[in-house]
Amino acid sequence: MQVAVIGASDCTPEESESARMLGWLIAKKGATLVCGGLGGVMEAACMGAREGGGRTVGIVPDRGNGNPYLDIVVRTGLGHARNVLVVQSADAVIAIGGSYGTLSEIAIALKMKHPVYGLKTWAIDGVVPCSTPEEAVERATGP
Amino acid sequence: MQVAVIGASDCTPEESESARMLGWLIAKKGATLVCGGLGGVMEAACMGAREGGGRTVGIVPDRGNGNPYLDIVVRTGLGHARNVLVVQSADAVIAIGGSYGTLSEIAIALKMKHPVYGLKTWAIDGVVPCSTPEEAVERATGP
Amino acid sequence: MQVAVIGASDCTPEESESARMLGWLIAKKGATLVCGGLGGVMEAACMGAREGGGRTVGIVPDRGNGNPYLDIVVRTGLGHARNVLVVQSADAVIAIGGSYGTLSEIAIALKMKHPVYGLKTWAIDGVVPCSTPEEAVERATGP
Amino acid sequence: MQVAVIGASDCTPEESESARMLGWLIAKKGATLVCGGLGGVMEAACMGAREGGGRTVGIVPDRGNGNPYLDIVVRTGLGHARNVLVVQSADAVIAIGGSYGTLSEIAIALKMKHPVYGLKTWAIDGVVPCSTPEEAVERATGP
Repeated sequence: MQVAVIGASDCTPEESESARMLGWLIAKKGATLVCGGLGGVMEAACMGAREGGGRTVGIVPDRGNGNPYLDIVVRTGLGHARNVLVVQSADAVIAIGGSYGTLSEIAIALKMKHPVYGLKTWAIDGVVPCSTPEEAVERATGP
Repeated sequence: MQVAVIGASDCTPEESESARMLGWLIAKKGATLVCGGLGGVMEAACMGAREGGGRTVGIVPDRGNGNPYLDIVVRTGLGHARNVLVVQSADAVIAIGGSYGTLSEIAIALKMKHPVYGLKTWAIDGVVPCSTPEEAVERATGP
Repeated sequence: MQVAVIGASDCTPEESESARMLGWLIAKKGATLVCGGLGGVMEAACMGAREGGGRTVGIVPDRGNGNPYLDIVVRTGLGHARNVLVVQSADAVIAIGGSYGTLSEIAIALKMKHPVYGLKTWAIDGVVPCSTPEEAVERATGP
Repeated sequence: MQVAVIGASDCTPEESESARMLGWLIAKKGATLVCGGLGGVMEAACMGAREGGGRTVGIVPDRGNGNPYLDIVVRTGLGHARNVLVVQSADAVIAIGGSYGTLSEIAIALKMKHPVYGLKTWAIDGVVPCSTPEEAVERATGP
């Protein structure tokens, strides 16, 4: 199972802490973490997944190597269009925070009927609001 | 100047009528209409632009020819990722209605700081709500 | 009809002159010129098409405005992946010169069974070699 | 290190056997196999990598799950444009056989100055011809 954590490269300490916990929990569930591969929420989630012994995939917008916690880097060179690939590649999506990039990913995920779980993110019809990283990962990875 | 009209391929008669008027007004302003090139809002806007003597560009998600009112067709084959190209190519964006695809385009446009004008669409911070097609085109094309 | 002229942004004076003639001839045939929208062969072809009273479309790899002779600019932000869009959007392709970018476009065009006409370009099975711009445009636009 | 094996989804038994050996050798070198994720050469390489205890990444053109031997699937939905992502994501590229899709990947790889090693593939200036899978992997993964 591939679970995406989406959120801004410029995030608050609280968002970063939530992301790290999400990554750790996803790893513990045995799922692969997929993300945009850059800093902020993405990097924190990857760090957490690594700490949990999990596997991380970064689908980066440029042709660089992404953050230091990636096991796999997909160098798209697609700019903002890579957002679409992140959510398409995920069986479930967990969103943190309120950037426009995150909103675009939520919208594409919902269009494709992929489940989206939200932690203090956009209140868009279709997003399942969650109170904690534990709840989000529990719902995203299922029973 | 290139102005995008974004909205669903499956729309209401009122949305279709607004889109047609938007296309006509954009043409009368001498601007080029850019859109996703398919049916619904896109097709109605293209029809209106043609009626106004304007030029239409369709950036389609597949490798087909798009709707019958396109002067130029860009066959992307990119699926949902083509949404990004539509708003990136526009100097201003006018959104109609409430589909998730439209929301993804609004989000990308705002991320790139392109102005977005809305007609009964998502109430996202940064979208300038407009009451009529005339107001939207007047604001989008400037003085 | 949409005809693509493909070639390097860094080209010889002879290639530039051929490209300009190609653009002019495509315009005189009433076809739309599609290209990658940057300099070199692309810019020369656009200049020629403008001189011939024709219409030019540039599908650029970045989010910029491309060369000064574009009527329509599609800002893809896709990097090299935009090459695919150029040849997919063309009903026929004319290739000049020997860069790797041009080779990638020839390959995709042939894969999609779009006809490819070549002026001193890669001798790939499937490319129809032509001696002059006149011959290439005559064959590309048909009777 | 990420090594791409590129080749057609419709291949000969010899190409399939070479691809399987390539995948196995790449795995034994501790590198990650990156490919287009579909059948033929791609599937054989993935099977070999699995047999060698390695890790496989498929960057598929659609939104499907690719072949059965993928550890990671990146669902691009980009059609032929996904070819660009495969070679961009690879530190070295090994090409088998003579399809046009493979040629497009070789061209993009060379444009980006990524090393390309070839087994009975297009004789393009810049491709390093190799006689055996062993030689190709040895050269691709370095000392």
